[in-house]
Formats: sequence, C-alpha cells, structure tokens
Amino acid sequence: MIELPLDPASSFPEALADAARLTDALLEHHLVVPDGPEARVVKAMRYSALAPGKRLRPFLALASAQLFSVARRSALQAAAAVELVHAYSLVHDDLPAMDNSDLRRGRPTCHKEFDEATAVLAGDALLTFAFEVLAQPDTHGDPAVRCELVTALAQAAGDRGMVGGQMIDLLAENDPSLDIGAITRLQRLKTGALIAFSCEAGAILGKATAEARLALRGYAHDLGLAFQIADDLLDVEGSAAETGKPVGSDAAAGKATFVSILGVERARSQAELLIDQAVSHLDLFEEKAELLRQAAHFVINRRA
Amino acid sequence: MIELPLDPASSFPEALADAARLTDALLEHHLVVPDGPEARVVKAMRYSALAPGKRLRPFLALASAQLFSVARRSALQAAAAVELVHAYSLVHDDLPAMDNSDLRRGRPTCHKEFDEATAVLAGDALLTFAFEVLAQPDTHGDPAVRCELVTALAQAAGDRGMVGGQMIDLLAENDPSLDIGAITRLQRLKTGALIAFSCEAGAILGKATAEARLALRGYAHDLGLAFQIADDLLDVEGSAAETGKPVGSDAAAGKATFVSILGVERARSQAELLIDQAVSHLDLFEEKAELLRQAAHFVINRRA
Repeated sequence: MIELPLDPASSFPEALADAARLTDALLEHHLVVPDGPEARVVKAMRYSALAPGKRLRPFLALASAQLFSVARRSALQAAAAVELVHAYSLVHDDLPAMDNSDLRRGRPTCHKEFDEATAVLAGDALLTFAFEVLAQPDTHGDPAVRCELVTALAQAAGDRGMVGGQMIDLLAENDPSLDIGAITRLQRLKTGALIAFSCEAGAILGKATAEARLALRGYAHDLGLAFQIADDLLDVEGSAAETGKPVGSDAAAGKATFVSILGVERARSQAELLIDQAVSHLDLFEEKAELLRQAAHFVINRRA
Repeated sequence: MIELPLDPASSFPEALADAARLTDALLEHHLVVPDGPEARVVKAMRYSALAPGKRLRPFLALASAQLFSVARRSALQAAAAVELVHAYSLVHDDLPAMDNSDLRRGRPTCHKEFDEATAVLAGDALLTFAFEVLAQPDTHGDPAVRCELVTALAQAAGDRGMVGGQMIDLLAENDPSLDIGAITRLQRLKTGALIAFSCEAGAILGKATAEARLALRGYAHDLGLAFQIADDLLDVEGSAAETGKPVGSDAAAGKATFVSILGVERARSQAELLIDQAVSHLDLFEEKAELLRQAAHFVINRRA
C-alpha cells in the first residue's frame, strides 16, 4: 500500500503544517553543507529555502498529487523542487538591482545576511538544484514523467513564465497607465505560473486524464490571481509584524496593483469571486479535493 | 543514414566554425522574441547567448557526440544547452556585485547594455531554458537519456560545480595564501565542470560504454585545466583587442592564479603537459577522435 502525501482526514491547517514539515525535512536532507569554502553558498541556499514560510506551493503539489494517489516520496520531490524555485525567485527579486528589499519572512534578506554576490549565486544554485531534484529517479519510476516535470517547471519559471512576469513588473513600476488586463497578465506570469506548476506537478506524477489536468489548471489559474489580490490587500491593510515585510511598499513605489486600480472593496469581491470559481473547477474530484477547497478559502483570508 | 554533427573530414578550425554556426542557428530558432513587454529579457538573452565567441563548449559536445555516431539534431540540442549555461554564467559573473566587468567578448556586458535587473533575469532565464532544451523530445528519443543529461548538467552547473567554483573564486580574491591544490580545485569546479559536461553529453547521448566515458572524462579534466592556465597566461600576455576584455585584471585584483604561483614559463609547460595527457586519453577512439586532439592543441595556442 502506498503512503499518501497528506493525511486525507486532516484539516487544511494541519495539512499545511504537515506539508511544510515534510518538505523542509526533504530539503534539509538534500542541502548538505560541504567541507570546502563553497560551503558559504550552500549555507545561503539553506538560509533561503528553509526560511520560515507557509509552504503553500509544496502543499498544492502534495494535495494535487493526492488526487491521483501518487506516492508520498514522489510528491515530496516535486514539492521540494517548487519550493527551491520559489526560494530562488525571492532571493533574486530582493536584490538591490531588483526590488531592493532588506526584510523577507521576518528576517534579513539573503544579500543582507550574506552579501550580494553570494545571494546571486545562491539563487542560481537553488534554481539549478530544482531541476536536479526533478530528474532524480526518486521523483518517478518513469523517466518520461520526470522529463515532463522538468519541461513544465522550466516553462513556468523562465522567460515565458515567472521571469517574464518579473521583467514586466520592473518595467511597470511608476507606470500608472497599467490597466487591469495588463496587471492580470503580469501576475499570471509572475506568481500564477509557478502556482499552476505546483498543481500541475501532481497531475503529471499521477498521469492524470486531460480532463483532470484542465480542471486543475483552471483551479490554479483562479487561485493564483486571488492570491495576488490578497497580497496587494495585505500590503495596504496588513502589519509588518504579520507579513514579515514592510507595509505600504507598493504605494510608496508608485506601483499599479489590483487594489490601486479597483480600490479595496472591489478588489476584495473580485478575489472572492475568483475563489468561488477556483473551487467550482474541483467538482470533478468530489470529496477527494476537500483540502484544495479549504486552501482556496485560506488564500484570501490569510493575514500574512 | 544519420547526419553526423560535424564533417569528419574537416580540420579543427573548420569544425569549430561549423559548430558555432550550427549552434547559433539553433539558439536563434529557440530564442524567439515575444510581443509583450517581457521582450526585453529575451533580447538580453539573445544579446548574451549569440554574442561573438568561439563556441568551444558546443564544439566539444558535437565532437564527442560524433565519436558515438549521435544524430546531428540530438548533439546540437546538447550543444545549445551548454552554451546557454555558459552564457548565463558570464552574464551573472560580470555583474557589479561579482566581477564587475564592463566589457565581454569585445562588447558591453549585459548589465551595461541593458541594466542590472535585466541582466540578473536574463541569466536566470538562460539557465532555466537550458534545462528545457535538454528535456525536449528532439534531444533524444529515450527520456531516460534526457533525464541523465538534465542531472549531469545540473551537477556541473550548481553548487557542486560551477557555482561552487565561482563562490570559492570570490572568497579567494586578495588571498595570496592560495596554493596550487586550492587553485586546481577552484578551477576544476568553476570552468572544468561545464567543459567536462560538454564532453560527457556526447557520451550520454551515444549511450557510451563506461570505458569510453572514463576516457572522455579524463580528456575533459585535463583539457579544462590547460584551458584555464592558458586563460591566465592570456591575462598576462594577451592584448585587450585580442581577448575582448581588459588585460592584467587578475594581477590588478591581487588574484592568485596558476601564473602568479608558477610563473609564466612553468605555467606554460604545465599546460603543455596537461594537453599531452588529455590527448593520450583519446587513444581508445583511434582516428575518430582527431578533431578532439586538434582542439586540445588549439586550447593552449589560442590568442583569445
């Protein structure tokens, strides 16, 4: 009998905590500090990948894999890979040349704790290692499945995904002419693509039907946008203690966001609408998708 | 009949030019500039990956693949992937926080031509895309082979390879206590690992025997070190017009190199010794390895 990624009887907060604990344990296992002077870059990788965080993306990978009865070890490899890519993106986005952030998840950013060169290299190595993890035989017995994961992650993370979104975001700073369509596209690339990969990874590992994949893609698409709107709302309404980063930074940077265009109230109802829509995509999976449904509601009610 | 990667009757300079032309054509084909504002990062990727250069690593991938009668398209995919990773490493290494170089291959570095944020993102996307290329069905019909390539490239490029070497290099700056063993290890990681992957890729694509792989690894190992010693010699003896970058930059930075420790004459004979040794590893392949033999002699006689 295979061991499922998560306990199907658990509540979402329990499952999220389990996902974080299991993913961190695997990352701990993978990121071994070597003896030589290059230890410094591995310490910076560990500092960033094991920083406190919700581990929402690993949870999505595990909960999606659960729909197709994927074995725990397989699902965890995908969860670890997606968290490695998420961690790399935060390290590079925080750099002085990019968003120039000093604080992340309540702690100094990687380049503040180490230095800028080490942060560039740590990000590079986290990204590289994500692909190594996916290609490992532990991820799936069928190498065609592992190749499909590598392809999907590269497309989600690269210039047609996350990197492209970050490029647009940098160019859009101080551009108040950005409309809702442009912001939606920006966020679909910048945060949506990796969230979609997290869900897609479970479907790839489970060799899901085209119908099931389409449903999960729809769920992830709506969830990703709602997640971003919630993020924008937190930047306006949250406290630094809760979010672990400076508040009001978007407005201070003159950035167009969902909230700056729609206003707080309309942004909030838009997010709620998206969550209802996300949940409706899961009907196909019946009670098996309960954790994913709970996750959707959590995303817009979170305080950090 | 399969079309071989290179014309077996060509001389090394012809084959090197062919490798560059074929690899650039494939990179041109792969790196399509999109319509949206994210076009900027793809232009920076093209600027860096298609910059004038010898394309020695693609040549090594093609010439190694040739030993095992690998089809041209397969070999070219591996050649493109290794050049993408090489280009990414140059873009990030040139950043102000790293080596802070303004000139590369005779042109402004990526962050000078674009800006620092775009250069970070372009490097990230080049690295990401390399893995996408390897995972494409065009690379090899057997997904197990593609997974093996992804694994080998990730190990060569990451913290246990190139990134680790660059970390050591940054820490070693202004450290005159570095001995020859430490420099050898540094260079084996920083430049040797990717050169070794270039040769190994051909063997992986050709499902070579363990004996053949071992021979190629020995060749690549010695070639990589000789290549680096030649690079150090060029920094002392070359001209900026020939090398496309400032001369004497190692000495100015107080960097320990093979030349600063061994002196010019002993460094040169060490490089010659390594090349003889590299060539001797190729005996196994008889006349089929003629291009690789010529490449080895080229490496220490190059002027740029």
